[in-house]
Amino acid sequence: MTLSKSISEQIPEIEARIRTQLTGKPSLLLADLDQLIFRGWRSLRPTLTLIFGRISNADPEALINLAAAIEMLSTAMLVHDDLVDIENQRHIGPNINPSFRTSAAVLAGDLAFAAAAQLAAATNWVAVMQKFSETLQFIVSGEITHMFRNGQGVDRDSYYHWIHAKTASLFELACETAILIGTQEDETMSLARQFGYQIGMAYQISNDIRDFSSDHAIQEKPIGSDLRQGILTLPAIFYFESHPGDPLLRSLLHKNGHSQEDLDGLIVAIRQSNAVERSLDEVRAFGQSGREILMKLPNTPERAELEQLIGQIITRND
Amino acid sequence: MTLSKSISEQIPEIEARIRTQLTGKPSLLLADLDQLIFRGWRSLRPTLTLIFGRISNADPEALINLAAAIEMLSTAMLVHDDLVDIENQRHIGPNINPSFRTSAAVLAGDLAFAAAAQLAAATNWVAVMQKFSETLQFIVSGEITHMFRNGQGVDRDSYYHWIHAKTASLFELACETAILIGTQEDETMSLARQFGYQIGMAYQISNDIRDFSSDHAIQEKPIGSDLRQGILTLPAIFYFESHPGDPLLRSLLHKNGHSQEDLDGLIVAIRQSNAVERSLDEVRAFGQSGREILMKLPNTPERAELEQLIGQIITRND
Repeated sequence: MTLSKSISEQIPEIEARIRTQLTGKPSLLLADLDQLIFRGWRSLRPTLTLIFGRISNADPEALINLAAAIEMLSTAMLVHDDLVDIENQRHIGPNINPSFRTSAAVLAGDLAFAAAAQLAAATNWVAVMQKFSETLQFIVSGEITHMFRNGQGVDRDSYYHWIHAKTASLFELACETAILIGTQEDETMSLARQFGYQIGMAYQISNDIRDFSSDHAIQEKPIGSDLRQGILTLPAIFYFESHPGDPLLRSLLHKNGHSQEDLDGLIVAIRQSNAVERSLDEVRAFGQSGREILMKLPNTPERAELEQLIGQIITRND
Repeated sequence: MTLSKSISEQIPEIEARIRTQLTGKPSLLLADLDQLIFRGWRSLRPTLTLIFGRISNADPEALINLAAAIEMLSTAMLVHDDLVDIENQRHIGPNINPSFRTSAAVLAGDLAFAAAAQLAAATNWVAVMQKFSETLQFIVSGEITHMFRNGQGVDRDSYYHWIHAKTASLFELACETAILIGTQEDETMSLARQFGYQIGMAYQISNDIRDFSSDHAIQEKPIGSDLRQGILTLPAIFYFESHPGDPLLRSLLHKNGHSQEDLDGLIVAIRQSNAVERSLDEVRAFGQSGREILMKLPNTPERAELEQLIGQIITRND
């Protein structure tokens, strides 16, 4: 089974809407912003908006603006996150003079915010703007909490809060607002939001697992690159839970005192432990919760498509 | 003549609305953001919103949200600008660990964006959101153009474009949207926007003149601090127009090749030239244009208050 043709045909329309929104903007940054947006282009979130929009009989034109706006909000945060993970400025492309990296990234992100706000306003729904601003605030607050957590230990709860803020919140937004601009039916809107949470959490954990995997054809970054930057994701957290005395944990939290060889050894140890499998169990658990939420929706072709999407996330690391 | 009591009494309400909006946000950044917002607190722009809102019979509650939203948008851009003028991180306060300066400023700015978006959405007007997003984009585009201008000379036109983007655009927004959420009368809205442009330009040039002045009781920064950072404002531009061969111009544009003594000498030369007086003439010209726009509005106490405000800007450097 594949996605219905009309959904997959609409994805290029969203991409075109983003390009139109950015047309005529300062060309010096645009090449790099363009590269970031479309290099990282994943159609999962826009697909969710389109499917839920069909469930809610939303205006197709407003749906395109909505999906494009959410992708631009995500892009803005990605650009600014690269400044927070300051050693990891991979997203700023070769066109930018290195001395302008910080400024360029700040302004490129702000330009993406402006585009997101314009596209969201183009839906013509005040309630959409409210959801956007709440989501932005939740994301930023989560990033701030995460930024200042350093050296204060790490646990699954704070990891879950962090990925909820940075990833799942945008999935909640993508699903919920698609109902909001259509039928606005309260129960469906709540289910859409809950489903967005579950699929968003499953998606981010599965991404974090891939950071420890060498089995995937396209690797954008070296194995363990999050850990090399001192970013602890779920596999590392599970590993340290079962190895609480490991001296590398403390040095990682303080981003000092470990050698490249220490890190290489740790990454091998994590990959050989049961931490990856335990993380996969979490992906499956979020996926299963997502499926259970779907069972509360009418049995339609759209629901079947959502079931298929969550199945793809559960199995992408198998 | 003083501002009518009810206008000046509403200013604290706007400040309180901003504080409420920020309550409960991550406390680590909040102290610094708070310091920035209220250290730089100028009541001119909110006062314009309140006066035009009275002209347009706008809902007082929506006006408070609107004025608070504009101040938060301005704050967001100020915070991010400090990263663009990277050597000038004066706004990030002592509570922030220096190694987090960049990250903290990016996220504090984003938090201010989120607050601006929430307050703007709280006005319940989609058209307000559209004006906000257009303004944000205009500001960011102007900053980008200005950032990449380096070494390519400087002239009054590009200076005017830059201060229109970074300052006058927010005054246009403050005046125009106050009509937009009230009577929405096209002619008044257009006049309000035009007036916002003129008073905003006059205000920024008068600020830039103060950078060359030692006559003011409260100096937030040393004389000539813009120039010391390689930022050419109107007095310097007038000076170099009449001294085109000055070797310091080129070195300033490339931010190298000049000593502290060179700069000190240049600042004295600018202060002793007619450049400051010519800049004051520009303030008066923008002020006069603003007055002429006001003459097209009905002769009301509100119009008299606007005339008084523009008079204060014209004479603040005398």
